[in-house]
Amino acid sequence: MTAAAGPRSLRLRRELRPEDVAAVEGIVRSTGAFRDDEIAVAVELVQESLARGARASGYHFLFAERGGATVGYACYGPIACSLHGWDLYWIAVEQSQRRGGVGRVLMDEAERAVAGAGGRRVYVETSSRPDYAATRSFYESLGYVAEAHLADFYAPGDSKIVFVKVVA
Amino acid sequence: MTAAAGPRSLRLRRELRPEDVAAVEGIVRSTGAFRDDEIAVAVELVQESLARGARASGYHFLFAERGGATVGYACYGPIACSLHGWDLYWIAVEQSQRRGGVGRVLMDEAERAVAGAGGRRVYVETSSRPDYAATRSFYESLGYVAEAHLADFYAPGDSKIVFVKVVA
Repeated sequence: MTAAAGPRSLRLRRELRPEDVAAVEGIVRSTGAFRDDEIAVAVELVQESLARGARASGYHFLFAERGGATVGYACYGPIACSLHGWDLYWIAVEQSQRRGGVGRVLMDEAERAVAGAGGRRVYVETSSRPDYAATRSFYESLGYVAEAHLADFYAPGDSKIVFVKVVA
Repeated sequence: MTAAAGPRSLRLRRELRPEDVAAVEGIVRSTGAFRDDEIAVAVELVQESLARGARASGYHFLFAERGGATVGYACYGPIACSLHGWDLYWIAVEQSQRRGGVGRVLMDEAERAVAGAGGRRVYVETSSRPDYAATRSFYESLGYVAEAHLADFYAPGDSKIVFVKVVA
């Protein structure tokens, strides 16, 4: 009765739906890694994209579904004033589904979408905190390079690391 | 018949008006330093702040007026997901009014506003291009320190320098 658990059973979806407001909040909250004000930002980007569309809002979404449930998502978009840089704003996978390859599938597909839209550099920002070590290793394992370190950016003792990957 | 030209004859204004859409476009364009897509972004921030307010949009404005004309402006706001970081998104002074101290007055007042709102770190991003050397020197003269260098960020050969200043 158990469905196949590998990434192959995943379905990817690009179009955004009103239900995604709750889905994104649930996914981001399940990780336990974000403060309420950060979760509010994640939700706001969904609302903004629903209200104005991906192009006008600058927020593109990609969802991973398994057995009809939305289990992960990525949010990315072109960087204003950059000719070829895109930001990966958020990537999160429902806590119970982690280590199943969902994040990697989302990253691969987001990079493909960026390259398809003419983007050449994907930027990801994350925290220097010890509890983000797995996140940083995840990006590094996908070919991202830490290019900048902004001390105390998020909060005292919580710096921002900017990773970049050239996609072709 | 000539009015006093020093920064003392400047008036600062915080409230945003519909006329500022055209004023900002004119100021930014007069500098000759920005592409059309960059000018569009500057104008968009004004429209966004007019439509939603400074708090909801996250874009705060400060204008410098001389003899009734708007001759410069700064746009800044709190960084999402940061407890105490603020971005200075734009500062521009009408070309004919440059070297008159307007930029320095705008920066001082913007930093004061940030500190007054509980902000502690002000970030400014600018280009590595040779034609931005005066801009970088300007920030350095005000106590900003170049903390990060993101290669080819804006375009091939056009990197992003991130400056930071701790305000108290």
